Amino acid sequence: MPADTPSTAAASPFDAHESAVRSYCRSFPALFTRAKGSRLHAADGRSWIDFFAGAGTLNYGHNPEFIKRRLVEYLEADGISHALDLHTAAKAAFIETFVARVLAPRGLDYRLQFTGPTGANAVEAALKLARRVTGRSGVFAFTGAYHGLSLGALAVTANRAKRAAAGTALGDATFVPYPDGRLPAEQTLAWIERLFSDGHSGVELPAAVIVETVQAEGGIHVAPADWLAALQALCRRHGVLLIVDDIQVGCWRSGGFFSFERAGLAPDLVVLSKAIGGYGLPMSLLLIRPELDRWAPGEHTGTFRGNQLAFVAGAAALEHATDTGLEAEVRRKGERVAARLARIAALDTRLAVRGLGLVWGLDCSALGDGFAERLSARCFELGLLAETAGRRDTVLKFLPPLTTPDDELDAGFDLVARALGDLLRG
Amino acid sequence: MPADTPSTAAASPFDAHESAVRSYCRSFPALFTRAKGSRLHAADGRSWIDFFAGAGTLNYGHNPEFIKRRLVEYLEADGISHALDLHTAAKAAFIETFVARVLAPRGLDYRLQFTGPTGANAVEAALKLARRVTGRSGVFAFTGAYHGLSLGALAVTANRAKRAAAGTALGDATFVPYPDGRLPAEQTLAWIERLFSDGHSGVELPAAVIVETVQAEGGIHVAPADWLAALQALCRRHGVLLIVDDIQVGCWRSGGFFSFERAGLAPDLVVLSKAIGGYGLPMSLLLIRPELDRWAPGEHTGTFRGNQLAFVAGAAALEHATDTGLEAEVRRKGERVAARLARIAALDTRLAVRGLGLVWGLDCSALGDGFAERLSARCFELGLLAETAGRRDTVLKFLPPLTTPDDELDAGFDLVARALGDLLRG
Amino acid sequence: MPADTPSTAAASPFDAHESAVRSYCRSFPALFTRAKGSRLHAADGRSWIDFFAGAGTLNYGHNPEFIKRRLVEYLEADGISHALDLHTAAKAAFIETFVARVLAPRGLDYRLQFTGPTGANAVEAALKLARRVTGRSGVFAFTGAYHGLSLGALAVTANRAKRAAAGTALGDATFVPYPDGRLPAEQTLAWIERLFSDGHSGVELPAAVIVETVQAEGGIHVAPADWLAALQALCRRHGVLLIVDDIQVGCWRSGGFFSFERAGLAPDLVVLSKAIGGYGLPMSLLLIRPELDRWAPGEHTGTFRGNQLAFVAGAAALEHATDTGLEAEVRRKGERVAARLARIAALDTRLAVRGLGLVWGLDCSALGDGFAERLSARCFELGLLAETAGRRDTVLKFLPPLTTPDDELDAGFDLVARALGDLLRG
Amino acid sequence: MPADTPSTAAASPFDAHESAVRSYCRSFPALFTRAKGSRLHAADGRSWIDFFAGAGTLNYGHNPEFIKRRLVEYLEADGISHALDLHTAAKAAFIETFVARVLAPRGLDYRLQFTGPTGANAVEAALKLARRVTGRSGVFAFTGAYHGLSLGALAVTANRAKRAAAGTALGDATFVPYPDGRLPAEQTLAWIERLFSDGHSGVELPAAVIVETVQAEGGIHVAPADWLAALQALCRRHGVLLIVDDIQVGCWRSGGFFSFERAGLAPDLVVLSKAIGGYGLPMSLLLIRPELDRWAPGEHTGTFRGNQLAFVAGAAALEHATDTGLEAEVRRKGERVAARLARIAALDTRLAVRGLGLVWGLDCSALGDGFAERLSARCFELGLLAETAGRRDTVLKFLPPLTTPDDELDAGFDLVARALGDLLRG
Repeated sequence: MPADTPSTAAASPFDAHESAVRSYCRSFPALFTRAKGSRLHAADGRSWIDFFAGAGTLNYGHNPEFIKRRLVEYLEADGISHALDLHTAAKAAFIETFVARVLAPRGLDYRLQFTGPTGANAVEAALKLARRVTGRSGVFAFTGAYHGLSLGALAVTANRAKRAAAGTALGDATFVPYPDGRLPAEQTLAWIERLFSDGHSGVELPAAVIVETVQAEGGIHVAPADWLAALQALCRRHGVLLIVDDIQVGCWRSGGFFSFERAGLAPDLVVLSKAIGGYGLPMSLLLIRPELDRWAPGEHTGTFRGNQLAFVAGAAALEHATDTGLEAEVRRKGERVAARLARIAALDTRLAVRGLGLVWGLDCSALGDGFAERLSARCFELGLLAETAGRRDTVLKFLPPLTTPDDELDAGFDLVARALGDLLRG
Repeated sequence: MPADTPSTAAASPFDAHESAVRSYCRSFPALFTRAKGSRLHAADGRSWIDFFAGAGTLNYGHNPEFIKRRLVEYLEADGISHALDLHTAAKAAFIETFVARVLAPRGLDYRLQFTGPTGANAVEAALKLARRVTGRSGVFAFTGAYHGLSLGALAVTANRAKRAAAGTALGDATFVPYPDGRLPAEQTLAWIERLFSDGHSGVELPAAVIVETVQAEGGIHVAPADWLAALQALCRRHGVLLIVDDIQVGCWRSGGFFSFERAGLAPDLVVLSKAIGGYGLPMSLLLIRPELDRWAPGEHTGTFRGNQLAFVAGAAALEHATDTGLEAEVRRKGERVAARLARIAALDTRLAVRGLGLVWGLDCSALGDGFAERLSARCFELGLLAETAGRRDTVLKFLPPLTTPDDELDAGFDLVARALGDLLRG
Repeated sequence: MPADTPSTAAASPFDAHESAVRSYCRSFPALFTRAKGSRLHAADGRSWIDFFAGAGTLNYGHNPEFIKRRLVEYLEADGISHALDLHTAAKAAFIETFVARVLAPRGLDYRLQFTGPTGANAVEAALKLARRVTGRSGVFAFTGAYHGLSLGALAVTANRAKRAAAGTALGDATFVPYPDGRLPAEQTLAWIERLFSDGHSGVELPAAVIVETVQAEGGIHVAPADWLAALQALCRRHGVLLIVDDIQVGCWRSGGFFSFERAGLAPDLVVLSKAIGGYGLPMSLLLIRPELDRWAPGEHTGTFRGNQLAFVAGAAALEHATDTGLEAEVRRKGERVAARLARIAALDTRLAVRGLGLVWGLDCSALGDGFAERLSARCFELGLLAETAGRRDTVLKFLPPLTTPDDELDAGFDLVARALGDLLRG
Repeated sequence: MPADTPSTAAASPFDAHESAVRSYCRSFPALFTRAKGSRLHAADGRSWIDFFAGAGTLNYGHNPEFIKRRLVEYLEADGISHALDLHTAAKAAFIETFVARVLAPRGLDYRLQFTGPTGANAVEAALKLARRVTGRSGVFAFTGAYHGLSLGALAVTANRAKRAAAGTALGDATFVPYPDGRLPAEQTLAWIERLFSDGHSGVELPAAVIVETVQAEGGIHVAPADWLAALQALCRRHGVLLIVDDIQVGCWRSGGFFSFERAGLAPDLVVLSKAIGGYGLPMSLLLIRPELDRWAPGEHTGTFRGNQLAFVAGAAALEHATDTGLEAEVRRKGERVAARLARIAALDTRLAVRGLGLVWGLDCSALGDGFAERLSARCFELGLLAETAGRRDTVLKFLPPLTTPDDELDAGFDLVARALGDLLRG
């Protein structure tokens, strides 16, 4: 099927045959056919600047040539496509690239576990391993957290509606307050400390604390660096493992390759997914401090844990990013975006802006429920993809590809400003 | 990286950097670089006939040209690579092909839910939906069952070692006896019926029963067709949903596209994964009877639920399979394999053979623990990949690509016979 | 308040102020004021033969003089009334009597744990200890089982309606079939054995199996002695503890002091309550094989675990029972009742009789739901208390005080026969 | 057995035959035989002033004549001893007395549920009913809370060691901070409010909050009256039920009959036990706002829910207390004790005193672990029973019978002062 030749009655197969569970297609109704860089094209000729980037998956943009070339070569050479956890040349190359280009320069030493290619699956593996290593079953997670929707990951995800969909008990998770401004940040740590240390806290010492350094789905809340450092110190004092879920804000999204670099953390376990496969290809990765790698062979498996095309694409992405200085670029662009958003927020005193690197949120909650959703819809009409996040979808979230050129960034935010103006005027 | 040029110190990155959790690479130690049809090639020049097929993922063989051509075209045209659940042309084409070539000819009507691309994730979705629709939380699963390793799927997986790795409670599952010869098949149904109907059974009426029509990981146990039909009737009488997990034995593996066709079932929910992506590409699919599709938008999501390359490859696979009469071919080859295995089992009265279509097991349990593993290892030395399955890995499992030519099937089983002879003699 | 002078508007305080949860008072509507032996008296002058005996609590009848005398003496002497688990003279005397009169003659050696004075609390203690000793969390219980309604005990109670009232998950219990005639008894053991031994059973090896040798609430089902012996042997082979719940059918009810004597068992843990306090006074007792008594001090406590009046009454009861040969009397009367009930059941071929010692059931299920309840109501009108039990309350249950004289036993069953005749005639 | 004639080898039956679980007898090693008022006597002639009072059970002292007389009369008249939930004259009298003397004067309207006679059992009933009425399964409990040790009650008990003894998961409880000085009281409410109202809190809206207005086992922490009022208001705003556990500090212990009177609460459910039976006799009571009394008959039962002697004694106790103005007396004595303890605490700046009414704690935590236990032991040597409570048993707890005369109160605290002096001097 040539990519640009849709079926004649465009959206019909979806309405007729796809489950009601689908969601993004309701916010962004179009039949997408082709994409390149930061731009998506639909069958009817419309196109959009993409500040959605597959919810943080397409950090290198759509179909970047430096990856595409490798994929086509690999396919043409009949490279292994699927291999479970067999040793393959493509996997060897990915591992070597990841170690040489990501871990070694940062002085980090981790074992790599390739899990089933969903972020949730890597979270499940992290929780299993933390429980096994510590011999404890509880995990602490934060209000506002999002870690995935399979049962183990869902147990540490904060969203009540998602939790309710489980239809069964979600056990062994204790929620503690994220430093998102509602409770004083020091009180959040005091409460965690008390739960750890008080023999009458009602809560057993947990196996691990799982944290996002920036809560993206939670509404773009950035944990202070000193809070993160204090959390790690607290965990270490009590022998509790620290798991950083870097699925959405890792892979350079917040500046460094890992989002926790700004706080100088060395987490026990790190979860990566989304952008790690480079080209939007499914892959997930759990990083394990070597002394914690106490898995027995095959204790956590999955058919697609060896998606070789993702290894090929992921290695190419890391090479390109490090060769071209992507990290510095993200920081530079982050400042540009910060300044631009400050001007936009100045349009109405009820707006608030939060973010860092290239993950940003425009908090419209003070403008009422529904405002951010209307703003997203207006952006879509004007030619920009940007989704909502946070409580009651009151935050407009910006996750442009990290490779977006400055002019396209500017153009995107011009559309945001225009859409906002339209709405504020009524 | 040219696919055939491995790193110089072949296996070293795995030992140095990969987690101890890896397993298949221990049974099949080689650095695989290239594959085609039913044959895998290693960096050192060795090659193997593949009766493993990615644990049932590579039903169409490695890198079939009729799919590869489509993938390369799609990449070259900058078709969308990753799209969550946005509407795309590639997805529309997959849906239309699936409906036209699989569902319609069988008179089946299902809604399609694309879940995160692991079988476990589709199982999790099935369980959530069954619970939501019925308002009940329990699920019945079978001794010997394997449905995946994320917490929700693991709760219905029977293997104690895998379950223990959870490190937390696995709730709301009741295990009932599979008709694998240990208890009389009619007693298994009598027990289920009693648990359903007895107000003092200690077990609440469940939301669903989840079943594999052939237990593959469990050791290749084939449920009798009349037992399956009686199970479905029993579920219907009590308003309990029937979920068929066709991850490993669906997609023509057991003859019909769905494994349950031989029993004339019309399950409420069907789970597909592994071979549905055609080329070993990650994809999972939940089929839902339309009246049960009561999801709210976004209740079960996942970043990689829109792996467009898998849609392209999966559609190509279905077209090819139906155009070339794969179903009849599987049946014909199944008879050939059955006859061949009967002769092999005749080498020792302690051997037993079970299977249908192109999923077969040689039960070596009466020859002692470890025998099947040594047999698998000997096959590997002789040039054949075949993994073990079942309790204590006592069954040698054969899952050749469905497209394996007769002479290669014969050659593979010749190696099995030779390996078996070697072991029996010494 | 003189016992026979009720408030003028007899039942009104109950209707006005007591919770809707009350139940027996609905079946037996009267204001009871006085009781002696096997006879209960109401404020309005009516009286009843009591084949209910406080659901098996009043094995020595109402207010027996040989206990009453001791209680009054103890009260008059200002003996300790409440002492938690302090050492008291009354407790010492009870322990010495229990050891000398119950354990020693049977060659049994158990540690005594006085729990909170509900049978459920002793069951909770038994389950905790079994879990602690084995390091496992699961427990097997039987279809039809009744062990109490606090959350831990409820988890091993089979009645769905009682379970539903929990409103939360009841975990770590696996229900297996009781030999009540529905499944062949040997199949029930085969299934348990398989769940124990199959590494893919889906169920972990449990800490314990908890069993009633006669299911009373379940509808008077008597487990065969050889089945009980085989169950104990099976448990021992697998290192699973055997807990016998003798709350209702222990204390001579089924013949021997312990109900399991007929099967020659030596359970790891035995739970007693109901009749152990002698005079209907609250007391519960867990017997623990000495090597399993691994409690840390205070791990399971309860304010009323030292109900001293119950110690006084309980010791008196044991003395009297052994001095007067109650055990032989129960056996003799049991035969008398068996013969009498056989004649009653002969009134209609749809009736069935089950029981032993002085616990019997008349199964009216074949006469339709509601029949046994109407029969109970008719008995009440005629002057006999007998409650219903079993699935859908289809069994009329007879638990006369063990001290009931023959003529009163006969008179009671005459009333049953008369009530049954009334109902069968229409 | 005459109460004062112990077995010759005093403690031996306990060592030889009683479980290792016993605890108080280790702190207070003596063979108690007789008691009256505030004084306990041992077989060896020693006696003690009792500031322990059966952990708050003997609020009316040991064997008060005004109750004893009624019990003996009732026994002699062959009043019903045990009646499950049948209507009896004794129960009618208790209900009428409770309504007339406790509820009516306070303008409270509750339905009475007589549960199994352990406080834990009444807590279990309260939690079941709260879940049933709201259709929610979660419950909030407080750090430091103690509600009992059966599985449902244990799930809301904070003590980690007690929880660990469960050996299985304790579900559906969320612990929130009690206002015990560790976190600012207003922050504790802010956190609860957030958990209630934040759709991404990770915690579902609970069925109920269960609270002790004074945490006794937790170490004598008195919740501020305005905090309690604010908690009730918060619960009402969110449709969450408020359960007050008044097992230890109700029945006049803290001044009013209910401990929550000082905060003007009208809880949805109130749990009573310990002193409600008057004479140390087992009884528990759940008070239910009439509109919440949605039990189906028999949904929560228990063999000893009709301990008639406790009804007789409990009614007598309420009559006497109200006739003699016990409430005012407790207040008056409370002031006397407060003054006396202030002087004692002045002996060392590291001591702290907390309490109200006649429940008081001397916090010795700043003097190191073990100090309070040594202090309790020294008091015992000198002739006073007072147990430890709180984290690591660092608080000496005073619960004298409410009927203790002033001179005996003074004498008791003289012993405390003397014991403290002994220890402080070394």
